[in-house]
Amino acid sequence: MQVRKAVITAAAPNQNRLPLQQLVDAHGTDKTALQLVVEETVAAGVEEICVVIRPGDQKAYESAAGSRLGSLCFVEQPEPLGYADALIRTRSFVGNDPFLHLVGDHLYVSSTDVPCAKQLVDVAERFECSVSAVQATRESNLPYFGVVSGPHLPREDRLYEIERVIEKPTPTLAEQELVTPGLRAGHYLGFFGMHVFMPEVMNLLCDLVEESDGDKPTLADAVAMLPSRGRYLASQLSGTRYNLGIKYGLLKAQLAIGLSGRDRDLILTEMVDVLSHRVEGQLAR
Amino acid sequence: MQVRKAVITAAAPNQNRLPLQQLVDAHGTDKTALQLVVEETVAAGVEEICVVIRPGDQKAYESAAGSRLGSLCFVEQPEPLGYADALIRTRSFVGNDPFLHLVGDHLYVSSTDVPCAKQLVDVAERFECSVSAVQATRESNLPYFGVVSGPHLPREDRLYEIERVIEKPTPTLAEQELVTPGLRAGHYLGFFGMHVFMPEVMNLLCDLVEESDGDKPTLADAVAMLPSRGRYLASQLSGTRYNLGIKYGLLKAQLAIGLSGRDRDLILTEMVDVLSHRVEGQLAR
Repeated sequence: MQVRKAVITAAAPNQNRLPLQQLVDAHGTDKTALQLVVEETVAAGVEEICVVIRPGDQKAYESAAGSRLGSLCFVEQPEPLGYADALIRTRSFVGNDPFLHLVGDHLYVSSTDVPCAKQLVDVAERFECSVSAVQATRESNLPYFGVVSGPHLPREDRLYEIERVIEKPTPTLAEQELVTPGLRAGHYLGFFGMHVFMPEVMNLLCDLVEESDGDKPTLADAVAMLPSRGRYLASQLSGTRYNLGIKYGLLKAQLAIGLSGRDRDLILTEMVDVLSHRVEGQLAR
Repeated sequence: MQVRKAVITAAAPNQNRLPLQQLVDAHGTDKTALQLVVEETVAAGVEEICVVIRPGDQKAYESAAGSRLGSLCFVEQPEPLGYADALIRTRSFVGNDPFLHLVGDHLYVSSTDVPCAKQLVDVAERFECSVSAVQATRESNLPYFGVVSGPHLPREDRLYEIERVIEKPTPTLAEQELVTPGLRAGHYLGFFGMHVFMPEVMNLLCDLVEESDGDKPTLADAVAMLPSRGRYLASQLSGTRYNLGIKYGLLKAQLAIGLSGRDRDLILTEMVDVLSHRVEGQLAR
């Protein structure tokens, strides 16, 4: 099995401008956030990428894609109905293949030489099953994450066999249902914003939508059903995720990328330079 | 005399996307760079603003202007022929009034409670003449700046009567022609990207364009003629300019704005947090 397709979801209102933001990559080259996300998927071996966008955004995204435009296709999500609805719209793109799912408003900085998406795809290809990237998440951050639990895979580093998935659990529910042995106390396995899904996930999503009356099913509803149908793994990647949509998210991501790359010393110098300017400014008052 | 109009030039290729970039202002609110530049002019007392844009950019700029859209009008510059050509296109907007000129790809952080543009407009209104903001500029940076020289105004702090203007002088030329007494050795008065122009500057620009054959006249050509026609001042503002168009320009501007505002402690914490993550990452290898 090889993962050759990726879906990037970027249609949420308030977040649809983030992939268009300008950053400098680890090699010191100007890139948009979209280019960085696309390069993350390409470095994982992906050849075809479908980006789910808001209606009206295609032109801006095309110009933000730079030289990667040739590997992209776009699908519109008419209403902001979440990841499940977004993924279903890529059904004909995905076909009967496994696919990598990334969100357009997160950037990843690996702490090894292997990019985060590549680490995840390697696990999926080795075990030939759906795998979600997870990170140890403090109890206080549970309201922002889908959380999974399950036993450590024997003789495997940082791999778990998922038994339960709960979207944004309360701390009480997490303590009752989602404790994963081997993590620090008060820590849980929270989604990292990156998954490899086998093609049956698409069928599951479509079935859920057909059966639903009223409440729209979520991606978490679909992945919660995966453990009963076969192996579904969680992989704790070596790296950090940066959510561009939170306050100062772009700043943090740029600092992290800069400090991880060839301009590390320049970034440190700029930080000190700005700090000293600000201190001078305060003294001058 | 009161300065009630401003022109923001934002049509240079490679720089036209910068005003659309997302930042956080000194009060912790998400703003585009365009909103920050517009607010700089509004804080200086300006009521009507004309933005010179590239053809096709108006929709993106309108959405980036947020709640300030009502004070803006847009003029297109069909070809990237520099500031002089850009300003001439605002002639009917400017009419017979003085106006503030800002560039769309710079942000300013004042080191006093008075914003930079307001400091400049205060000088123009007091002396009723054209005034360019300047900063002490190291010899090594002369290739990037218009440079002026002239005597210190008696009994005035940081104000100069401009006698010469030379665009991007060589260090030799600067040493021969542009030494301004009172500055540190090897330092000159370089433009800060912010001017208040009396209406005759517009006439001067138009005359220069009409008389020219071949080489397009520049804004520096026009302001170089100002000293022979009346008083033209240079004002060393209390503040720092941040060019978003240079490498890591957005990062530096965001750090400076953040460190000058209410989120100062949060920004310092984030800086340390990212640094420690990067160090952990290195140790984990």
